[in-house]
Amino acid sequence: MKKMKIGLLGCGTVGQGVYKLLKLNEKKYLALLDGTELEIVKILVNDLEKVREDIPYNLLTLNPYDIIHNKDIDIVIEVIGGTTDAEEYIIESIKNGKHIITANKDLMATKGQNILELGNEYAKLVKYEASVGGAIPIISTIKDNLVSNQITKVMGIINGTTNFMLTKMFSEGRSLENVLKEAQELGYAEADPTSDIEGLDAARKIAILASIAFNRRVKLSDVYVEGITKISIDDVKYAKQFKSTIKLLGIALIKDNAIEVRVYPTLLSLSHPLAKVDDVYNAVYLEGNAFGNLTLIGKGAGGLPTASAIVADLLTIAKKINKGTIIEVENCSCYLDLEIKKIEETSSHYYFRMVVVDKTRVLSKIADAFADNNVSIDSVIQKKLPEGKAELVILTDRVLNKNMKSAKEQIENLDVVLEIKSVLNSEKEY
Amino acid sequence: MKKMKIGLLGCGTVGQGVYKLLKLNEKKYLALLDGTELEIVKILVNDLEKVREDIPYNLLTLNPYDIIHNKDIDIVIEVIGGTTDAEEYIIESIKNGKHIITANKDLMATKGQNILELGNEYAKLVKYEASVGGAIPIISTIKDNLVSNQITKVMGIINGTTNFMLTKMFSEGRSLENVLKEAQELGYAEADPTSDIEGLDAARKIAILASIAFNRRVKLSDVYVEGITKISIDDVKYAKQFKSTIKLLGIALIKDNAIEVRVYPTLLSLSHPLAKVDDVYNAVYLEGNAFGNLTLIGKGAGGLPTASAIVADLLTIAKKINKGTIIEVENCSCYLDLEIKKIEETSSHYYFRMVVVDKTRVLSKIADAFADNNVSIDSVIQKKLPEGKAELVILTDRVLNKNMKSAKEQIENLDVVLEIKSVLNSEKEY
Repeated sequence: MKKMKIGLLGCGTVGQGVYKLLKLNEKKYLALLDGTELEIVKILVNDLEKVREDIPYNLLTLNPYDIIHNKDIDIVIEVIGGTTDAEEYIIESIKNGKHIITANKDLMATKGQNILELGNEYAKLVKYEASVGGAIPIISTIKDNLVSNQITKVMGIINGTTNFMLTKMFSEGRSLENVLKEAQELGYAEADPTSDIEGLDAARKIAILASIAFNRRVKLSDVYVEGITKISIDDVKYAKQFKSTIKLLGIALIKDNAIEVRVYPTLLSLSHPLAKVDDVYNAVYLEGNAFGNLTLIGKGAGGLPTASAIVADLLTIAKKINKGTIIEVENCSCYLDLEIKKIEETSSHYYFRMVVVDKTRVLSKIADAFADNNVSIDSVIQKKLPEGKAELVILTDRVLNKNMKSAKEQIENLDVVLEIKSVLNSEKEY
Repeated sequence: MKKMKIGLLGCGTVGQGVYKLLKLNEKKYLALLDGTELEIVKILVNDLEKVREDIPYNLLTLNPYDIIHNKDIDIVIEVIGGTTDAEEYIIESIKNGKHIITANKDLMATKGQNILELGNEYAKLVKYEASVGGAIPIISTIKDNLVSNQITKVMGIINGTTNFMLTKMFSEGRSLENVLKEAQELGYAEADPTSDIEGLDAARKIAILASIAFNRRVKLSDVYVEGITKISIDDVKYAKQFKSTIKLLGIALIKDNAIEVRVYPTLLSLSHPLAKVDDVYNAVYLEGNAFGNLTLIGKGAGGLPTASAIVADLLTIAKKINKGTIIEVENCSCYLDLEIKKIEETSSHYYFRMVVVDKTRVLSKIADAFADNNVSIDSVIQKKLPEGKAELVILTDRVLNKNMKSAKEQIENLDVVLEIKSVLNSEKEY
């Protein structure tokens, strides 16, 4: 029987998922590859003695070069994560003639271009479907299935941890700190949750999606990022009054030939297809100039779901190796040079929540301050508080970020305004 | 400049959409194809004088063989629909060395296998993404993106006309006849709406999706079909009481190594991802053994949305021609021979609505009749009607179709039962 040999870098949840899936659907893969067997022949781990169900001990190694320098291995799957080791191993694997599959969003969002171009140079495929959205085949969908379109907007719930937390805050009225603890206990959030709750994880993923959607390399450092740490239970209550929810969204769009790309918690009307995507589900909403809009909802993490993406990439590569059709490799589709707009020049709807002195003309003073900065108001909720105070929540029309900021400064300095409690973005048009 | 020449069979909404899209995104396609231009050189119409915006008159022809026998044409796009002419033209086009892209669900659901195999024989690609779900790339998603999975279930809202009608019935409380008239006025329903409202259109599409999902050819004649014509406004009211909606679903699943495939109106809990897919939107919910579940929601019809699918297929073929990688063609992935279950042997939850005599022991007699046939009851709503009658609505647990039928027969013969008003399937597990 013909064999295609695979080296696996890393053997955590995802690595074990890949191993398991190759066994689970072995027959189907054999049929698809006309009898060629996919065989994992070596697995890099950092602890030989850790218990890994069903994985033969003799496949394990502590030395990455047992894989990288192994001449029998055609394809290397990298599921270590992080940028330090993974980058070196991938680069050396390509140079040693291996095709690459990686789930590494950190690496792809920072060094993606180098790696893809190195792959081109050595005529080696580099595929990374698993780096965004877990089991949702969002990269193939944008890159292949919707290739006939100019993609104009990508908007996604692409971090399961924060979506789980926000869902709990909305359904159970609990505080962020409280639900974070539960997320950690359930293993959805890391002991150090910074990368998730500060929006960095989502930022890496939206950088990757923006690059593919707009054919222009977008890096992590190009993404404006705000996390969810400032969301309070009061914001949750007001969002509900506005028939909305709050989701941490990665947003990338193209307008007037310039790219905008950002991550922030967003007030989202309940009628939006992303608004009902709850718990650890991920989802991506796309707009394009032919298909109109398309929404994909699925599992954003987990061993088998992520392995689903990795093995799909693996089968694609294996088929091409089998047919001898890997001739000229074009890993990277970023051929355009478009401007990336500064956040100040982008526009959005905004939600302002503030505590004010409860007396006449307060609202008019605030409205004047908004108007002075070209910020027009869409709707207002005012609520009496004890001790002669009131809470004021204002939704604005679509305004420039810099105008919102200058309005905020002016309002902060009004003597009737005691505290601006929160300013959130809001999406209204779709 | 290098050119790839295309013949277009048909020039209705979709054909014009394809022509328009090739102009709209011309620059992107040139870049993708390294400068090769996609040019429609001939268009088959049945009336030369009909007004078609922006399409040059000199491209039109009444003779299909101006395309089929044109040696310059590499790719033929068929958007005529129906089976008679389209089949002949596609077969002759393949025999004359052309790759095929078709949006023809009628043909693919009945003669799909022949056409795909003929393509294999002549080493010509046959692609048909546009035949199901309009702009939703559901065929590529199942066939390519999720190829790493055993697909276990496909459940879709794949007929926009009936989804528009059911949405209106739910949101505005109007009757089926009334909303059908509006759908016809808006051009969503044909003058003869049989194919849509009797479920045939959806049946063709689920046959195509089942074939791809389960690697086993499923034809239109294998699909059990019920349309929406019996849905009354009373069913709508009760569905709402059960926190559910009613959708015309195409359902295909694999259980115990046998395939089940059917189309019928289905009571669907509002928490299901398909329940909120309204108006003319289409959506497909998939389950697989690695990804878990995935839902795609998008536009199911229209010129540009359907052209989005066609031109994606076109770019795939054009790329392969350019690179010379069309060697061994495998259009068809149906290599398994699985049993297709008779509807009687399948199981479902059911919704029974009946008018009964309003006196004691009626419910117990009916419950006994269900129990006699191994049908267990999940929940009951009873409502008093005038003239000593009552309406009884019963949801069952999951039971065999044949048991439901025998229970229905027995209940119909009870003297306390005046009329069984409707029996609908219901989906509860996901």
